[in-house]
Amino acid sequence: MKPPMTSKPKGLSGFPEWLPEQQLVFECFVRLIEDQFRLYGFTPLETRSVEPLEVLLAKGATDKELYTVSRLADGSDAKAPDLGLHFDLTVPFARYVVQNRGHLTFPFRRYQIQKSWRGERPQEGRYREFHQADADVVADGELPLCHDSEMVVLLAETLTKLPIFPVTLHVSNRNVLLGFYTALGIADPAAVLRVVDKFDKIGRERVGALLGELGLDQKQIERCLFLAEVRGRSPDVLGSIEAAVPKCELLERGLAECRQLLRDIEGVAEDAVVLNFRIARGLDYYTGIIFEGLMHGFETFGAVCSGGRYDRLAAEFGADLPGVGISIGLTRLLGLLFGKGALAASRKTPTTVLVALDSAAVYPEAFRTAQRLRARGIASEVFDAPLKYSKQIRYAEQKGIPFVWFLKGQSSGGHEVRDIRNGVQEPASPEAWEPPRADRDVTVSRTGG
Amino acid sequence: MKPPMTSKPKGLSGFPEWLPEQQLVFECFVRLIEDQFRLYGFTPLETRSVEPLEVLLAKGATDKELYTVSRLADGSDAKAPDLGLHFDLTVPFARYVVQNRGHLTFPFRRYQIQKSWRGERPQEGRYREFHQADADVVADGELPLCHDSEMVVLLAETLTKLPIFPVTLHVSNRNVLLGFYTALGIADPAAVLRVVDKFDKIGRERVGALLGELGLDQKQIERCLFLAEVRGRSPDVLGSIEAAVPKCELLERGLAECRQLLRDIEGVAEDAVVLNFRIARGLDYYTGIIFEGLMHGFETFGAVCSGGRYDRLAAEFGADLPGVGISIGLTRLLGLLFGKGALAASRKTPTTVLVALDSAAVYPEAFRTAQRLRARGIASEVFDAPLKYSKQIRYAEQKGIPFVWFLKGQSSGGHEVRDIRNGVQEPASPEAWEPPRADRDVTVSRTGG
Repeated sequence: MKPPMTSKPKGLSGFPEWLPEQQLVFECFVRLIEDQFRLYGFTPLETRSVEPLEVLLAKGATDKELYTVSRLADGSDAKAPDLGLHFDLTVPFARYVVQNRGHLTFPFRRYQIQKSWRGERPQEGRYREFHQADADVVADGELPLCHDSEMVVLLAETLTKLPIFPVTLHVSNRNVLLGFYTALGIADPAAVLRVVDKFDKIGRERVGALLGELGLDQKQIERCLFLAEVRGRSPDVLGSIEAAVPKCELLERGLAECRQLLRDIEGVAEDAVVLNFRIARGLDYYTGIIFEGLMHGFETFGAVCSGGRYDRLAAEFGADLPGVGISIGLTRLLGLLFGKGALAASRKTPTTVLVALDSAAVYPEAFRTAQRLRARGIASEVFDAPLKYSKQIRYAEQKGIPFVWFLKGQSSGGHEVRDIRNGVQEPASPEAWEPPRADRDVTVSRTGG
Repeated sequence: MKPPMTSKPKGLSGFPEWLPEQQLVFECFVRLIEDQFRLYGFTPLETRSVEPLEVLLAKGATDKELYTVSRLADGSDAKAPDLGLHFDLTVPFARYVVQNRGHLTFPFRRYQIQKSWRGERPQEGRYREFHQADADVVADGELPLCHDSEMVVLLAETLTKLPIFPVTLHVSNRNVLLGFYTALGIADPAAVLRVVDKFDKIGRERVGALLGELGLDQKQIERCLFLAEVRGRSPDVLGSIEAAVPKCELLERGLAECRQLLRDIEGVAEDAVVLNFRIARGLDYYTGIIFEGLMHGFETFGAVCSGGRYDRLAAEFGADLPGVGISIGLTRLLGLLFGKGALAASRKTPTTVLVALDSAAVYPEAFRTAQRLRARGIASEVFDAPLKYSKQIRYAEQKGIPFVWFLKGQSSGGHEVRDIRNGVQEPASPEAWEPPRADRDVTVSRTGG
């Protein structure tokens, strides 16, 4: 054996790891999201963690900091590393779809809950290793707009299933934005888009000033600010946009897309979806609807989820494959809520019952008792040493295990089970006893905040 | 947009990715394993993917090929990379436990289903990126032997829950092996252990010859071969081992550990556990019971799962923390079974019902119908274009979706649902219709082999 290392092991900035009671919350979120995605017919997918560096660099790696991966055995004098860890789940998904095109049935609906890596400077809500939960549908040919509507509903509904604060989805449309700016006679609409995207961060006045620096005149600036400030969920909003500028084909197309969305989702998620043309999404691959979700009370932390339509995602691979997708920033969301102490698991373990041990000799009976409970779906542990009951109960308390099982109860002399939260103890049989429904599994709840 | 890349995207050797119907099998395995681990009170854990290189190198990286990770932005002239991807789940777990010692309750039981990476040459059953499903219990102090017994039962039981071929757990004990060799007067028992470990690969004669090369005399060789060939699940096996050599404290200890195991698991997993002292496990951190599982019909491919007791896992971090753990080679297991076409998902999607579309105008009604089915836990999709019914049904067939829902049925004029496997179509209400239980979710079954 080697001598002990000098330094105590410690965390790595930007690479979060959760405590058991937090990880139970994480797993609960993952199952809720998976179940929801599956209800909508999305099939699970997991891609490898690495992609050829050229693929990652071709896909916006200018603003992401890539991690490269090399075999240590290749030595430091070997050729430059040619693999990198993916920085999102969309690039590997596009590559996977093109690669397996002949084996997939389109429209292809998949979800993917996986880690990505970015070498950015870690800060609150920004990690170097993080989980995202994505769902996308892609077509090999045309992808009707009804998918866009469905994705908005799926995302809104999924968020209501999670024990978090309400999230409002702010929905915008690239064609409305670019068409509106074009109709105003602006030469570089994309530049305006990048400025407007900062509205919530820098405010109205600064946006106006920056637009002036781009060469826009006062009237153009006012109209751009009008578009950035209009908000609502009524078709009237779209009418007021149409009336504000000269006719423009791209704008008409964008407004028609918005009208179809409003029609499709009528009566659904009324409070959770709002049109907001301040949303522009910096990433350049969106080509239609775009949206992001802000959590009530956490608006200043930015989006906890996002999504949109892209028509040319796999263009680098020589295929068009239009799609629309959503993404929930799982690590970001949990990091924010854990940071505020706003989420709690009901206990630190899946265990519902701790079988107490009187003496080492009765271990086989204690083990068989646990096995009978497990066979009935009741998570159980056996205490591993015949210590005083008070010490065994203390272990259960520390882990939040609600019930302790005794092979020789004080009153009946037979099996008894005690709810250690209230001290009530009663005779029980491992074949028949049922814990209250709420104690069967760990539950997660939102706490204050 | 950049021009298309010259090469079609392709797979990376050693980095497996599954097709949707295979990934559904993977997810099914993960849920079955998780549910089983949770029933035994193991709590989920996920560690970061990277560890300081010095930690990985201190832990047997001589025989594993490490992947290093560096920020591309650091440039090629920067200092040597100091992070690597973990090559198993045990090293990061040991580091996590020492790091979070003050926040954990011991004995600490955790499971971890995660990827690891090894830069070895890819071959059948050996991958560069692979999933393992581990469960371990560690103590901060002493860890009673009953945990060893429970882990064997947990592993045996978990394997019976998976739709695979039967797996036999071959159980050995490091103290029996080393004690037996010591009792024979062999100077370097560890060298014998490494030779015996190859028994199934190279055969009896070659093992005998190699032991001769180590300097063992004929009688020592015969006894070593006897130990390697004894097998069974009766205490008599242990008696015959004891009788074959002079008394030795280490051997006595190992045999006592085996006896306790046999007593603890009496009547459990009778066909699935056998003593086999040919099992030695090359990895050096085991200090008591060791075991590996061979799948019937796939014995020559080596172990699909393994485990054992370790008393000094966290020694490098200055902590002893004895533990016992199990590991299921998930990617390896699935790779073998997929390779033989021995596993099948009932369909390629979670979807149970495809709602057909008559015309674009009825999309809102079709969508609301799907929403009603989803609200009742029935996974549904809406077809996205008003094509001929035959084309819509063809899509369902290709994905294996069993039911197609019509808003205007031929006979009733109202909602009807057709089982496309037998063509039976009948009136149905989205509030009341129930699919057969077996069609509610994807099922996975073993096929021939």
